[in-house]
Amino acid sequence: MKVGFIGLGQMGAAMAGNLVKAGHEIVVHNRTQSKAKPLTDLGAVFAASIADACKGDAVVTMLADDLALETVVLGHRGIIECLRPGALHVSTSTMSIAMSRKLTEAHAAAGQKFVAAPVFGRPEVAQAGKLAVVAAGEAASVEIAAPIFAAIGQKTFVISDMPWRANLLKLSGNFLIASAIESLGEAIALVAKGGIEKAQYVEILTSTLFNVPVYKTYGSLIAGGKFEPAGFVAPLGQKDIRLALSAAEELQVPMPIAGLLRDRFLSLLATGGEALDWSAIGALASRDAGITP
Amino acid sequence: MKVGFIGLGQMGAAMAGNLVKAGHEIVVHNRTQSKAKPLTDLGAVFAASIADACKGDAVVTMLADDLALETVVLGHRGIIECLRPGALHVSTSTMSIAMSRKLTEAHAAAGQKFVAAPVFGRPEVAQAGKLAVVAAGEAASVEIAAPIFAAIGQKTFVISDMPWRANLLKLSGNFLIASAIESLGEAIALVAKGGIEKAQYVEILTSTLFNVPVYKTYGSLIAGGKFEPAGFVAPLGQKDIRLALSAAEELQVPMPIAGLLRDRFLSLLATGGEALDWSAIGALASRDAGITP
Repeated sequence: MKVGFIGLGQMGAAMAGNLVKAGHEIVVHNRTQSKAKPLTDLGAVFAASIADACKGDAVVTMLADDLALETVVLGHRGIIECLRPGALHVSTSTMSIAMSRKLTEAHAAAGQKFVAAPVFGRPEVAQAGKLAVVAAGEAASVEIAAPIFAAIGQKTFVISDMPWRANLLKLSGNFLIASAIESLGEAIALVAKGGIEKAQYVEILTSTLFNVPVYKTYGSLIAGGKFEPAGFVAPLGQKDIRLALSAAEELQVPMPIAGLLRDRFLSLLATGGEALDWSAIGALASRDAGITP
Repeated sequence: MKVGFIGLGQMGAAMAGNLVKAGHEIVVHNRTQSKAKPLTDLGAVFAASIADACKGDAVVTMLADDLALETVVLGHRGIIECLRPGALHVSTSTMSIAMSRKLTEAHAAAGQKFVAAPVFGRPEVAQAGKLAVVAAGEAASVEIAAPIFAAIGQKTFVISDMPWRANLLKLSGNFLIASAIESLGEAIALVAKGGIEKAQYVEILTSTLFNVPVYKTYGSLIAGGKFEPAGFVAPLGQKDIRLALSAAEELQVPMPIAGLLRDRFLSLLATGGEALDWSAIGALASRDAGITP
């Protein structure tokens, strides 16, 4: 397939690389051109504009937030303007359900296909081509996107013909991860203040009840108090909890843990945590208990 | 070994059965004698009194709460009075850290050995002899208990020479499980109200991010709204959160999620949930969102 790829952050660059390796003809675009270098070395072509990335069968986006999507997709000389009718936009970004609906309508009006396909996995998982892809959109569009999903992920789950539902599922998943981080933070503060060795504690938990990468990764980060370099920075975590709460407000679903997580992120950002991994909220319970995280 | 076993609830009966099968000479005692029948069928001997269960090398207890421990261990004709000096008491119950310290002191004063060895796993895991055992006590005592741990569990973690630390770790683990239940409940309410099929949602989560029995078991129970028969009844869950909060208060560790869980259990009990599995707190977010759990 001839595919454009827009957004070469840690996640996007890894995903675009796997599309090149799978033999697709990839044209990459990024605001900062230097980030495209490793991909052009692999055989991708650099596009100086969004329009130049929109000349193929499909364009994939991996952008940081709603604002970037607004600009890249709906803005002047953006995807809606430049993609040919009948071509496909696959959005892998985490976005609000409101933005997802807005993009669905705009693409429909322009006669273009649209699939929301947010992914689960940190950058190293993306690198390995082992992401989990949650896709939603019209069946025919999802089918066209299948080779793209095969290149970037290990498993694809098709959940609905309405794209925004995939974005809702992604937000709920990030909420669950943040909940696990916060509860690990509280448990570690409790046992550490009781004199139990933190690393041994995490080892026991993650070789029994919670033998799964989410708990292993974040348990070690919290026990070690090591939140740099960030795999996923705190402001992005904060944004996802905000989007989950915003979906919860629209759907009228009270979520008390989500409310608590919002405050944890505010406290982390208020005390200089902008550059830290989002799991640094897991150190706040120790701080509140008067012990060194 | 010649071992007494006191407390034949779902967990205790399964554990005592595995001790018999491992070839130990087991004497069982329970307030309600009928519960001993399956074990005497296997070859265990029934003891009519606590005293009669205390004549061997060791006595193991699996009791529901601090009050039962107070009676059975410290009461008239209890374990402290009846166990010979030098013999061992292994307490596998979940108890407060205050009670654990009290038992440690009482056993020391009586010249008896004491090991706290709470276990992780639901009744079916106990049945399979695959519990995780977290043990704490003097090294020599823990060593004597090793054949008992080998019969009831798959892994044993020795964490300290102070018994109460094992009880603290157990409470923190139950807190983490309850946290996972509550956050699953909130996430399921959110996506279900957004029109995503609950069973498919749990399947996606537990085949990717949360591929682990805690999330699988409780995710299915919450998605299916099926909380009977209970593997672990709500009042026991409530008790464990109360004990975790009580340890947190003593150690001065603020735990906001634990506070929230306390209120969930109160609400569950206030609305007729006494006989339900503790995971029924995971249905409260759906109820609060005005949808059928």
